[in-house]
Amino acid sequence: MIGVLGGYQTSFGELFEKGIEELILEASLGAINESGVKKERIDLVIVANKLAGKVVNQDHLGSITTSLLGLRVPGLRVEAACASGGVAINQAVQAIKAKQAKKVLVVGVEKMTDRSNGEIASALMGAASSEERRAGLSFPGLYALMATKYMEKYSVTRKDLARVAVKNHKQAVKNEKAQFRREITEEMVLEASLVAEPLGLLDCSPISDGAAAAVIGKDEGEVEILASEMVTDSLGLSERESLVELKATKEAAKKAYMQAGVRANEIELAEVHDCFTIAELMAVEDLGFCKKGEGSKGVKIPINTSGGLKACGHPVGATGVKQVVEVYKQLSGKAGERQVEGVRLGLTHNVGGTGGTVVVNILKKAI
Amino acid sequence: MIGVLGGYQTSFGELFEKGIEELILEASLGAINESGVKKERIDLVIVANKLAGKVVNQDHLGSITTSLLGLRVPGLRVEAACASGGVAINQAVQAIKAKQAKKVLVVGVEKMTDRSNGEIASALMGAASSEERRAGLSFPGLYALMATKYMEKYSVTRKDLARVAVKNHKQAVKNEKAQFRREITEEMVLEASLVAEPLGLLDCSPISDGAAAAVIGKDEGEVEILASEMVTDSLGLSERESLVELKATKEAAKKAYMQAGVRANEIELAEVHDCFTIAELMAVEDLGFCKKGEGSKGVKIPINTSGGLKACGHPVGATGVKQVVEVYKQLSGKAGERQVEGVRLGLTHNVGGTGGTVVVNILKKAI
Repeated sequence: MIGVLGGYQTSFGELFEKGIEELILEASLGAINESGVKKERIDLVIVANKLAGKVVNQDHLGSITTSLLGLRVPGLRVEAACASGGVAINQAVQAIKAKQAKKVLVVGVEKMTDRSNGEIASALMGAASSEERRAGLSFPGLYALMATKYMEKYSVTRKDLARVAVKNHKQAVKNEKAQFRREITEEMVLEASLVAEPLGLLDCSPISDGAAAAVIGKDEGEVEILASEMVTDSLGLSERESLVELKATKEAAKKAYMQAGVRANEIELAEVHDCFTIAELMAVEDLGFCKKGEGSKGVKIPINTSGGLKACGHPVGATGVKQVVEVYKQLSGKAGERQVEGVRLGLTHNVGGTGGTVVVNILKKAI
Repeated sequence: MIGVLGGYQTSFGELFEKGIEELILEASLGAINESGVKKERIDLVIVANKLAGKVVNQDHLGSITTSLLGLRVPGLRVEAACASGGVAINQAVQAIKAKQAKKVLVVGVEKMTDRSNGEIASALMGAASSEERRAGLSFPGLYALMATKYMEKYSVTRKDLARVAVKNHKQAVKNEKAQFRREITEEMVLEASLVAEPLGLLDCSPISDGAAAAVIGKDEGEVEILASEMVTDSLGLSERESLVELKATKEAAKKAYMQAGVRANEIELAEVHDCFTIAELMAVEDLGFCKKGEGSKGVKIPINTSGGLKACGHPVGATGVKQVVEVYKQLSGKAGERQVEGVRLGLTHNVGGTGGTVVVNILKKAI
């Protein structure tokens, strides 16, 4: 088996007082301490990050992290836009399977609030296709295209979308690391400024700083990683057959369920990629938690107990790692005030761009 | 065994007419065509790149590349400063060992000349420590510190350094893809403007655009990858015990020789990381091709038949992949005008920063 031995999330939010190195160190040491693994036994470090080269002029984060921790082990950075964290977890699993390493430290980190929103919005568009950028599209714009099509096809309203944001904000109240620990109402979502019709400000996940880390190891851990699957699709929406689903989510989920030997209806909680409210609806459907077009009616299991990207925050490189940390905390009974009782099987779903990359992990409480 | 099935290098240089997508496509299709592998059999894509987010505002290169090739397979980007290419090759080997993939396309790419030298110099410093940046150091400055110490300790002169540049330029004349296909003299190197004393302009590798790609596969190929080792060291020079060697090179080489079951004196040619003339001298010593301090006397085997970073060019993300492509071409007898006859065992050496990351690969002609 391959297991999660420890996990840690820094506070997410506008962390003006913390540099990228401090975030990396806090998350790394937090995860290592919780794992009970001696620092010196870590034999590989994988860092997930999208924007540090641009925002804080710092690349080479693999060597930075091993340097900060005083380790002399291989280190590298992986990037796949907002799926960087999921890809890093996936690569850690592969490294253990390849016998390259026995104990891997995965760190996801992002500093975003040190730049103006305009600069960050432009930098984020580096995850989209050049065609879409030339057309003047932004990520809210791209997801708005999907939302428009989806709402028309399934007779879904802005109010239906709003409930996703309301739910995730409510859940974030119980997460002391979340960026927004306050409830919002459907009315507030509907009355917020429109960003890209039909998506308003409160349909969108925020710009955040933060880090998350996990120690992944062989043959131990309270939580087992049953499956980790990474799938790509066309970068641009114009090449997709459908705008109301992410094909990469469906494929990654299918592969992961097969690898894990479980069915969608056996999953007991999930962290899904709710970069926009519409994204959560498509995700729960594409992951098989309900029928297509019925995501807004709600599903049977808790989704995004952390508060999701929407309310916990979305420091891009950290998100996919944080999702695994949250499910690990839930399955190992360490989720504190927001603990869901008796859960044994969880899933994480991390999306890059508009579905150009998707990673799905399935985790199980070890017996 | 894990083998190299095909390799391709685009022209390196100031390629104003080619965008990053064109470079990726040219290199990818070149390598795939040479490998004889049907495109559809590629089951993983790993892209090496450092600067595209900053220089051409394009991240998410894994999805870009699979999108460009019309493939629906996992894709990711790895980054470790100037060692990104070597790390990508290393990860391809690991993916095959982990049975994640059977045929991996590795693409290294960089666009650098679209920005001013000042912007690029600043962006490149993202590979160094924040301490060194605050001190106003540049990469020529950091290597100049090492050169000064080295020259003093081993009684080596600027003329000794210059011979490295002269040799690599001479070799690049025979490489139709090289950025500088013209010979230079020791006098030219000595008389060139000083960049950071004792390093002059012609002691430095250039700013380049370009891409290189290789198809790595299981149980086939004319060239076998006997070993691929990645090692990190402290990011900053201030934490190093010695300034006249790269500890990470020594460690990666030691591990690679052990893994491959060969000795340093059995290697018949090598591509080493000559980002500055001093770097090649330290490399040939740290790799064990001669005694410490005697690199300037020359070694018995051909070093940098491609022209090296100095004369073939140094598009950062492409370099580590190009080194493997060059050694593959030599070992499989496809190096054309610059073919070294009868070589069966080669090595590549790729450095990130000032030695924060080092990758050493050992390749052998398959029987």
